[in-house]
Amino acid sequence: MSNDIAIGIDVGGTNVKGALVNRDGTVVSRVQRPTEVEAATKSVIGVAETLQQQAAADGLNVAACGVGAAGFIDSHRGAVTFAPNTLYDDPEIGAAVGSRLGVPVVVDNDANAAAWGEYRFGFAAGIPHLTFITLGTGIGAGFVVEGRLVRGSTGAGAELGHMVIDPKGPRCPCGLRGCLERFASGSAIAEAARIELEAGAASSLTSVVSAIELVTAEDVAKQAAQYDDLSSSVLRRAGTMLGVGLANVVNLFDPTVIVLGGSVVKAGEAYLGPARDELAERLVAQRRRPARLDVSSLGDDAGLLGAAALAWDAT
Amino acid sequence: MSNDIAIGIDVGGTNVKGALVNRDGTVVSRVQRPTEVEAATKSVIGVAETLQQQAAADGLNVAACGVGAAGFIDSHRGAVTFAPNTLYDDPEIGAAVGSRLGVPVVVDNDANAAAWGEYRFGFAAGIPHLTFITLGTGIGAGFVVEGRLVRGSTGAGAELGHMVIDPKGPRCPCGLRGCLERFASGSAIAEAARIELEAGAASSLTSVVSAIELVTAEDVAKQAAQYDDLSSSVLRRAGTMLGVGLANVVNLFDPTVIVLGGSVVKAGEAYLGPARDELAERLVAQRRRPARLDVSSLGDDAGLLGAAALAWDAT
Repeated sequence: MSNDIAIGIDVGGTNVKGALVNRDGTVVSRVQRPTEVEAATKSVIGVAETLQQQAAADGLNVAACGVGAAGFIDSHRGAVTFAPNTLYDDPEIGAAVGSRLGVPVVVDNDANAAAWGEYRFGFAAGIPHLTFITLGTGIGAGFVVEGRLVRGSTGAGAELGHMVIDPKGPRCPCGLRGCLERFASGSAIAEAARIELEAGAASSLTSVVSAIELVTAEDVAKQAAQYDDLSSSVLRRAGTMLGVGLANVVNLFDPTVIVLGGSVVKAGEAYLGPARDELAERLVAQRRRPARLDVSSLGDDAGLLGAAALAWDAT
Repeated sequence: MSNDIAIGIDVGGTNVKGALVNRDGTVVSRVQRPTEVEAATKSVIGVAETLQQQAAADGLNVAACGVGAAGFIDSHRGAVTFAPNTLYDDPEIGAAVGSRLGVPVVVDNDANAAAWGEYRFGFAAGIPHLTFITLGTGIGAGFVVEGRLVRGSTGAGAELGHMVIDPKGPRCPCGLRGCLERFASGSAIAEAARIELEAGAASSLTSVVSAIELVTAEDVAKQAAQYDDLSSSVLRRAGTMLGVGLANVVNLFDPTVIVLGGSVVKAGEAYLGPARDELAERLVAQRRRPARLDVSSLGDDAGLLGAAALAWDAT
């Protein structure tokens, strides 16, 4: 119907963001609320119901709802099977939300949803071999292969952040050592800076934070932009290791384009430049074709829009 | 038609092996000939034409032909785009063979073909999330995701052997350092043994080869079976690194089953045991579900049968 609309929801550890989204990716209205502690599903239902009411008030009919959530998601069942950082009062998100809204609900991993958002609405829309990588506190990814997401047999695939690139590397909360996430994520950047500061290295970082343990990746990015050597060097090393990971992605998935999103891309060329250089150097060494690498045009909306796109595709 | 048959061809650096294969994977007859130097396509045509004549003599009609070949394969075009170890007189294999046989010809990477063979005819037949890894001189892989092969945008995907697991590791002929292949393949096993022997380590290997530089992975496997400590330790380290790679595969593709093939699996538990242990330990650490790991039931025929299966699927 011409007055149909889809709900897209992005479940974060801090906030649940939702929107009414047209089939072409236009956002009609937005709702955001804090993620309730130990009751993330309740927060999702709250956002979804508010959006359905807004739709009704505008004479729109919610046709479907898509939810992107961190963790391992069984998308067939619409359920969270493992989420280390968010507590769900009801892991069967799809059934819980669907019974309240009375419409089909699609649930997928948040990075998968964002990848789908890029595939449907981003600068690389319609490119059938596309990789999306989100660089935040951790590293997530969604792989579009021949126009389909790689979810794995139990929804536990595409965990690029836990691809080990150095078995003797630093410990990761996931239980392994040397995961890509431990070298190239926001938390890795902050930690690398803290370690150098604790060892007594000089840096303008000490003048902007009250204690070394409070240094964030954002602080490091800001000081790198102010020509702080330590911050620049930390970002360069993180970017270089990201490049190692990107080359592995190309060797495995051979995408036409790699789209980067997440908060850490805001660090800009101090971080992305070394990643691009390392990737290019590796592809040349292997006599591979260049892969296009660029920052998302959808920004923080990729997950939201992708969840809505997954919902539209289910109608 | 009930008298239809498919040709499956596996192009190796040494031999081109072909067979007439029924839709259910039964081999009706076989042909093998040495791969001509700098003229691999000519060898493939020779094998294909011989098989078509055999089919005609048996009252069978060749409906399609499948070819599995090492290197980067553009399967849409049926062409080899990059093959470091084999020289093709005509890289457009599909067109060259098709014009001689007068039937549709499918060309794919040899490890992809083998993965498809496992998916159609192996012990894991029909399991939609399946990874096949071939452990030989190098390491190749084919990833079946939701019942489809991951080929990549240019056919240069699934190069698991060149997934870097230690950026400071040993140099790889591909141009990178620390590729999985440099730790866990047959050539890596042979090289690791040679390095220890050259450093003066004691081993029964010295009594079975005339010169250290002639030691092969097969020699190492045989001596490990005879309780040679050096050989056992080399296989254990190679198997452990294979386990690191397998855990990465699970983190990215989340397959239900991983099928191992190639000559090095004949080294048995001295090599596969540590791989299995390392994989299990990593999955437990990550609180992931176990993945089934087993040796191919098709053996050296996986590639041949898979090429035929790809041909059948194209009819």
